[in-house]
Amino acid sequence: MPEAMDVRIPVLAVVGVGLIGGSFAAALRRTGAVGEVIGVGRNAASLAEAEALGLIDRAATAEQAAAEADLVFLSTPVGAMPAVLRAMAPHLRAHAVVTDGGSTKQDVVAAARQGLGECVGQFVPGHPIAGSERSGPSAADPNLYRGRQVILTPLPENTPASIARVESAWRACGAELFRMDPARHDDILASVSHVPHLVAFAFLTHLLRRGDAVERLGHAGSGFRDFSRIAGSSAEMWRDILFANRDAVLAEVGQIQQVLEHYAALLRGGDAEGLEALLAEAAALRRDWLSGIAH
Amino acid sequence: MPEAMDVRIPVLAVVGVGLIGGSFAAALRRTGAVGEVIGVGRNAASLAEAEALGLIDRAATAEQAAAEADLVFLSTPVGAMPAVLRAMAPHLRAHAVVTDGGSTKQDVVAAARQGLGECVGQFVPGHPIAGSERSGPSAADPNLYRGRQVILTPLPENTPASIARVESAWRACGAELFRMDPARHDDILASVSHVPHLVAFAFLTHLLRRGDAVERLGHAGSGFRDFSRIAGSSAEMWRDILFANRDAVLAEVGQIQQVLEHYAALLRGGDAEGLEALLAEAAALRRDWLSGIAH
Repeated sequence: MPEAMDVRIPVLAVVGVGLIGGSFAAALRRTGAVGEVIGVGRNAASLAEAEALGLIDRAATAEQAAAEADLVFLSTPVGAMPAVLRAMAPHLRAHAVVTDGGSTKQDVVAAARQGLGECVGQFVPGHPIAGSERSGPSAADPNLYRGRQVILTPLPENTPASIARVESAWRACGAELFRMDPARHDDILASVSHVPHLVAFAFLTHLLRRGDAVERLGHAGSGFRDFSRIAGSSAEMWRDILFANRDAVLAEVGQIQQVLEHYAALLRGGDAEGLEALLAEAAALRRDWLSGIAH
Repeated sequence: MPEAMDVRIPVLAVVGVGLIGGSFAAALRRTGAVGEVIGVGRNAASLAEAEALGLIDRAATAEQAAAEADLVFLSTPVGAMPAVLRAMAPHLRAHAVVTDGGSTKQDVVAAARQGLGECVGQFVPGHPIAGSERSGPSAADPNLYRGRQVILTPLPENTPASIARVESAWRACGAELFRMDPARHDDILASVSHVPHLVAFAFLTHLLRRGDAVERLGHAGSGFRDFSRIAGSSAEMWRDILFANRDAVLAEVGQIQQVLEHYAALLRGGDAEGLEALLAEAAALRRDWLSGIAH
């Protein structure tokens, strides 16, 4: 694991030790690059579980963690970030770097500016494109980020050294790094994550409206299982993500409605050739994409 | 494998030896219940491949196969069925039973009536709810139907003995049997298979329209991979299925557009509580379904 040579984190603080934060701690701990892991969170039972699982060494307040940490990883809901960062700001060590794992970036940047004020240069926003429909400390997995993408959306105030430290921590977790403007990040993630989630959730809402959803689902197969997997995700988390990226999400939903209308028109009009051409083009895009990735 | 005791098929004819037909042959052959497997198809290369893979013993014409087979399995596109059945009808042995693996049933019943005429009582329509985005003889898998559902939609003209013979063949493949009215079958499958496919295809069509689809997809993760898997399926096959079940599919597409509009309205109106309630209800339905199946 040669990447471990580049990263030295005497004290790592993880705020929100669930799937995302716990996996980050577990992955870094395994490289040997981390001295101590401090866990911060509102839920005492979760912190106790994280400690029992060996994800963290001890629990502390946000203030205590800020005073000790070399790297702070935030995996709280975005709504909780300004208060956490405000509590941390006066105590942050001068060389400390703060990063996050949030699924949207424009709102995280706003929250960081609000919470950190003049210290915002210490905050390097990031998004690991990895997850699971499971959650909590018990879902943490040191391999969660292996081979996955992490997109950083650095601020003008960030120093190259701060960005490089966050990048080497992620590389040590096995991730592949990208940099992007926060608005572009949110626009792309709307397409390939947020709106697919919304559509999958909406499909189940549609089935529920039919009244006999349970009987219908009784005959669903593996295609439906995979198509709908992301609709088993946390409602609270996805409510936040969809609102955080509302404009891009709404624009895409409108476009998808137009595409569905186009499909319906071809069916209604009996245009078999036109429909097959659309289906073939879609299938080719999907196959090309799949052959280009190494999942 | 106690089920094998109930089924004796001296000669099985499979018309269309791809994923569905090839897997049926392979599964039955493994039980030892089948004496000989005859393959019928328009594509000589496919038949040669099926023979080389041991899925069939020899290729024959539809007429020859009808004259020899005890059980005929049709896995051709529905459009090809009337002609195949018309060719077979004069040669079918009196005790022979014909069944199929088509994804829609009302149109198959119509094709069977058209092709078989007075012999239609020998045709027991069926649909194994199993598949793969792969196709062709090389995709055939003797385990494809293990633990999967097969829905039969028997005709008033079928004898209980004919239905029982098809059922025991499927049980020997490891499948679980259901019986249903053809219209109810098509309505349910629209919900849990046909429209999910259409939506997944439409999602990729939507991405293509954005122009920078390849860059966007470059940042898609495992959630998108699973959501979109069924959009990698055969365009020709899905064109046929969507047209065959057009009325039910169009009705569902309209309903989904309304649900998407409802989601969009909640987002636009800032109704976080309302959105979370919908998401939670959808996620609960999905989780309850998953905990009730044993995939």
